[in-house]
Amino acid sequence: MEQIIYVVPFLGILGLIVMAVKSAWVNKQPTGDEKMVELAGYIARGAMAFLKAEWKVLFYFVVIAAIILAWSGTLVENSSPVIAASFVLGAFLSAFAGYIGMNIATKANVRTTQAAKSGLARALKVSFSGGTVMGLGVAGLAVLGMGSLFIVFYHIYVVSAGGDVNGLDMERALEVLAGFSLGAESIALFARVGGGIYTKAADVGADLVGKVEAGIPEDDVRNPATIADNVGDNVGDVAGMGADLFGSYVATILASMVLGREIVSDDQMGGIAPILLPLVIAGLGVVFSIIGTLFVKISKETDSVQAALNKGNWISILLTVAASYFVIDFMLPEGDLVMIRDNSPVFTKMGVFGAVLIGLVVGALMSIITEYYTAMGKRPVNSIIKQSSTGHATNIIGGLSIGMESTVLPILVLAAGIYGSFLSAGLYGVAIAAAGMMATTAMQLAIDAFGPIADNAGGIAEMSGCDKEVRERTDILDAVGNTTAATGKGFAIASAALTALALFAAYVGIAGIDSIDIYKADVLAGLFVGAMIPFIFSSLAIAAVGRAAMDMVNEVRRQFKEIPGIMEYKATPEYDKCVHISTSASIREMIAPGALALLVPIIVGFAFGPEVLGGVLAGVTVSGVLMGIFQNNAGGAWDNAKKSFEKGVEIDGKMEYKGSEAHKASVTGDTVGDPFKDTSGPSMNILIKLTSIVSLIIAPHIAEVAPNEMGEKNDDRKEIKMESVQEELVLLRQEVKAQEAEK
Amino acid sequence: MEQIIYVVPFLGILGLIVMAVKSAWVNKQPTGDEKMVELAGYIARGAMAFLKAEWKVLFYFVVIAAIILAWSGTLVENSSPVIAASFVLGAFLSAFAGYIGMNIATKANVRTTQAAKSGLARALKVSFSGGTVMGLGVAGLAVLGMGSLFIVFYHIYVVSAGGDVNGLDMERALEVLAGFSLGAESIALFARVGGGIYTKAADVGADLVGKVEAGIPEDDVRNPATIADNVGDNVGDVAGMGADLFGSYVATILASMVLGREIVSDDQMGGIAPILLPLVIAGLGVVFSIIGTLFVKISKETDSVQAALNKGNWISILLTVAASYFVIDFMLPEGDLVMIRDNSPVFTKMGVFGAVLIGLVVGALMSIITEYYTAMGKRPVNSIIKQSSTGHATNIIGGLSIGMESTVLPILVLAAGIYGSFLSAGLYGVAIAAAGMMATTAMQLAIDAFGPIADNAGGIAEMSGCDKEVRERTDILDAVGNTTAATGKGFAIASAALTALALFAAYVGIAGIDSIDIYKADVLAGLFVGAMIPFIFSSLAIAAVGRAAMDMVNEVRRQFKEIPGIMEYKATPEYDKCVHISTSASIREMIAPGALALLVPIIVGFAFGPEVLGGVLAGVTVSGVLMGIFQNNAGGAWDNAKKSFEKGVEIDGKMEYKGSEAHKASVTGDTVGDPFKDTSGPSMNILIKLTSIVSLIIAPHIAEVAPNEMGEKNDDRKEIKMESVQEELVLLRQEVKAQEAEK
Repeated sequence: MEQIIYVVPFLGILGLIVMAVKSAWVNKQPTGDEKMVELAGYIARGAMAFLKAEWKVLFYFVVIAAIILAWSGTLVENSSPVIAASFVLGAFLSAFAGYIGMNIATKANVRTTQAAKSGLARALKVSFSGGTVMGLGVAGLAVLGMGSLFIVFYHIYVVSAGGDVNGLDMERALEVLAGFSLGAESIALFARVGGGIYTKAADVGADLVGKVEAGIPEDDVRNPATIADNVGDNVGDVAGMGADLFGSYVATILASMVLGREIVSDDQMGGIAPILLPLVIAGLGVVFSIIGTLFVKISKETDSVQAALNKGNWISILLTVAASYFVIDFMLPEGDLVMIRDNSPVFTKMGVFGAVLIGLVVGALMSIITEYYTAMGKRPVNSIIKQSSTGHATNIIGGLSIGMESTVLPILVLAAGIYGSFLSAGLYGVAIAAAGMMATTAMQLAIDAFGPIADNAGGIAEMSGCDKEVRERTDILDAVGNTTAATGKGFAIASAALTALALFAAYVGIAGIDSIDIYKADVLAGLFVGAMIPFIFSSLAIAAVGRAAMDMVNEVRRQFKEIPGIMEYKATPEYDKCVHISTSASIREMIAPGALALLVPIIVGFAFGPEVLGGVLAGVTVSGVLMGIFQNNAGGAWDNAKKSFEKGVEIDGKMEYKGSEAHKASVTGDTVGDPFKDTSGPSMNILIKLTSIVSLIIAPHIAEVAPNEMGEKNDDRKEIKMESVQEELVLLRQEVKAQEAEK
Repeated sequence: MEQIIYVVPFLGILGLIVMAVKSAWVNKQPTGDEKMVELAGYIARGAMAFLKAEWKVLFYFVVIAAIILAWSGTLVENSSPVIAASFVLGAFLSAFAGYIGMNIATKANVRTTQAAKSGLARALKVSFSGGTVMGLGVAGLAVLGMGSLFIVFYHIYVVSAGGDVNGLDMERALEVLAGFSLGAESIALFARVGGGIYTKAADVGADLVGKVEAGIPEDDVRNPATIADNVGDNVGDVAGMGADLFGSYVATILASMVLGREIVSDDQMGGIAPILLPLVIAGLGVVFSIIGTLFVKISKETDSVQAALNKGNWISILLTVAASYFVIDFMLPEGDLVMIRDNSPVFTKMGVFGAVLIGLVVGALMSIITEYYTAMGKRPVNSIIKQSSTGHATNIIGGLSIGMESTVLPILVLAAGIYGSFLSAGLYGVAIAAAGMMATTAMQLAIDAFGPIADNAGGIAEMSGCDKEVRERTDILDAVGNTTAATGKGFAIASAALTALALFAAYVGIAGIDSIDIYKADVLAGLFVGAMIPFIFSSLAIAAVGRAAMDMVNEVRRQFKEIPGIMEYKATPEYDKCVHISTSASIREMIAPGALALLVPIIVGFAFGPEVLGGVLAGVTVSGVLMGIFQNNAGGAWDNAKKSFEKGVEIDGKMEYKGSEAHKASVTGDTVGDPFKDTSGPSMNILIKLTSIVSLIIAPHIAEVAPNEMGEKNDDRKEIKMESVQEELVLLRQEVKAQEAEK
């Protein structure tokens, strides 16, 4: 059984090899004419400039955090200074995954434009290959990194110490491995928030002056902010998303491993199999994602791109499910299993497989619900269109109302999923459900990442003055990309919720508490504070976009005024100034929300102890999931309500088109929705996972520190604690009996 | 001690007598010219028509609910069919409180207009007298109703049964009394939601066609929706708020009484004093509110109205605090107190007084924070003004961001308040903190209700063509009213949060569970579902306003088109048609959100048992408080950002006035904010209390039903009820003492 451990890293390496082959193929594709190459160069350099600026800040963060981790690792028995190395590696690989994605995206974009000249099938092939490179890069690095590190820590802490695979030595190995996840998820947060601010500041700024004030089309080469806008697609939707999914993937695997340690079979501990299982499933997911990508192709111009993507996706998923069945059957022990928790149900290995299925069903339902709420032609988007006819305000009211409504079904599905996977295989089941959902991350990400590549390709086509049919083809891909982006977000928030719960459960185990009782006043106060965090986080992110967009507006206005000849194509706008504004604004503004997510659990944990922190975690998770769904779906619905006007919509029997008052109202909704759906909304899933991971990391510390810190407070309370009442009761009963006996 | 019980109803009667005197005085004031009387007549009839339509629906609801309650009261030992009578009385008094408020408001409005002709001081006197009638009516009925019912039930269930005042007989008496609170709070929810939909549908509808399309001023007599708009002020801001505060007041007292039963002093049960205390404090609050109202007056035209209100308010509060000190000192037992809960701290009677103080400090801080976030000239409103200069979208982004940000400080204050009052006097302290805050409800409501009266008076002045200075004077009162409305909402949400927690604690006691552990998967799923309720509730309420406003817009457009001569004052618009639209829309649309609040706890409680319902309650409370603060403050800030343009605002060195593009953007924000701050936002505090009360009512049922339904699971959960342990403890102590004495 143990030998399987050595197979996992090779599955990661396999993914990376296929990635390298695909990447070389994309690089070999023709890049088109000089103008296209020039524009692509601007975008690539702008994106690189952002990454460098971001990395500089993150470098300091990683160094400081690593020093603190190394120091704190010496303080408690079940951690180690090695956690710092684990953290640095996680942070590095997360940043590297973002880099791989962005590098291929800034190469695939112009090559997709060129490919679109010869047909839709070819354009899909190039853009999807770009996406595949990113997907395999992220998943490959995650599997390789987690797999190898686990081998190392397993040998250091368990094998060489002669420890028990289910004992405290393994707990220590996994606690140190958690550093990897912390590194990955912290970088993910900064990349997602920074990238999200960048892309929306540029987008909103470019639109407000370019489209609205100057009356030039989107992606017009005369707009000084247009390069920044296209860079934004890469740093937000590609690099940000890459780091995000890398973090999610790693966190999910970690949570399952930590809980897997606690499984007990009939007459012995569960062995290493439940700990290894999530790594193996992830490795298999990489292999079957590779197979799935082979089916994503169309042969005719009229073939459905969405259908091709769906086919590839389902093939990956079904193969992974089938393989999981055999792997679970082979690896896990026979008979009854149970977790070392006082509330664990008894389950069997088929219960674990059931949890995988539940995870997939939850993920699929979340995607379907998200699509319903954000797709054109359905009731939600239509209601926003209708409410656009009475003005900006009713459009906004409509979108907010739809966004809030759209939380109902996902929450019911999620609640059923939590409960169902718990009944199937206890808390391990909840974690495995998330791991099942995330197994085909490589495929999922390939589908997600091809969208922004196509979007960029369309921008380059517009700016370089390609034929209309080129833009039409990239627009087809872009439209499919918008749908996959929305459903991908529904999927992401569901997996994040399950992962956060699994991490939460892992935290409870390590923090040494056996319940999180919200009926206690301090825990309830923690729940309130935790639930507030997603609100202030969203507020900071949204306000940052607003501020950065206003800087951008002023810069574009200045260039139009001060550089004569821009509008007549005689002068080139200073693209780099706009790129610089977005870059510096996003770097500056990502600090506060990032610090919030990292520091709140630490402060609460040390000041108020592990159970109050548990309350905070529950609050962050519940409120974060709700705010994430609300913002993602409201933003998506507003976006598609606006897009519907391009083809014309019927309101009260009258057709309304682009340029009508109703359309203008719909543009307002779309602009409000931009930071919702691309900055704060998708950050919610990182926020909830990061606070959980930070808590997991500090759990051994607060478990030891808390009793001392809480000192007096606890003494006070204990006086007439239930135990003492009961003790007195017992004593009194004895006394009464004794006295009766005397008589 | 027990004799104090008979004093309480008389304090309520005292309040009602003063109310009758004030009411007679208002009625004697001159009503002005014929035109004014005619317009006031339209408003009064429209308001009455709404109340009648609402009552008709609520009548059926009350009858059906009463039958169910009567039937269910026969099923378990610690309830009784009498709960149905209690429920009907609560519902009736709540509706009656709303009626009193609306009746006086529709009389005081035109008399205030007339009084404003002779000066601001006189206008304040008439409008504030109107508010006082309402405040004393609500508080007087609540104190009289609760006080008398408690006497009756105390005699039926405790005295005549020879029961222990701290035993299960008293639990039964209080459980039956909870029916009164259920009746009051259900009516409050329907009145608040229905009234909120009415007023905003009329307001938004009147503005969109009248101000924006036809270009006529607000409250112009030519606008067919203007009467509906003015009716809305009465049915939403007066009748809705009256029922709301009646419900809150009653719920707070009830929660404190239920928890008071569980107090144990050093060597005996706590006696009846802790149960009576909240009733006594409420009664004193009525008396000191009457005294406070005497200080609300100005002598010169230039005196500050706000200062006069503050003076009266603080006098009421400080007198109540001082009296509470003596009452607590006199009533509560000496020495250490503790609640029969396994996590109660030990406290003294001064700790109870400390909790009263904490409640008042929390209330004051909430008001200050709310004012900061919604007042003109402060950073939040200024930031929205600045963001209006770049358009509708940035105005909305700004408001949403401010609304989310504004949750931070209130939540921290609330968390500290929960923890502080808990440390002071356990869960009883949390309830008493809320009771302290609510004690001067009569005064608070007088201050709140004078605003809409002044608003209406201004409308009548405008419509009847009074001199400009009349309108200016009513505008001064209206502006103060806007501030008091905003701070009142901050206060209301804080008191609701504390009350909900106290009810939550009371529920836990009666449901027979000893923890609500969110680390259990089903409880956590419940937390998710509960937290989602405020989102769907808000969505329903907001969408209802949007739909009803569109109906109103179409009707106004139709009248302008089909009735010639309206614009030339030659034809009278069909006001009653608009009144009818608002009435029927609000009645129709209040059903779904109301049913949601009532049914969810019942379904969850019976299907999943008491602990999962506890998770749902915590979710509703936390998320409801956040959504309430978010929506109230965003709405208030948008409103005042718009109002700032009336005097002119400086944006980037340029002055912007009414009619500018920036002003138009601010109008969009205000319109979005309308349903936020007047429909869904203020409903949140009723929602969280109502779900808690419903749970409290069904607690004995699910506590008994659950073990059968849930079967095995609950066998595990210990059935050791605290009461029996505590009772046995007391008996054993006595026995030991007796035996020792024998020796």
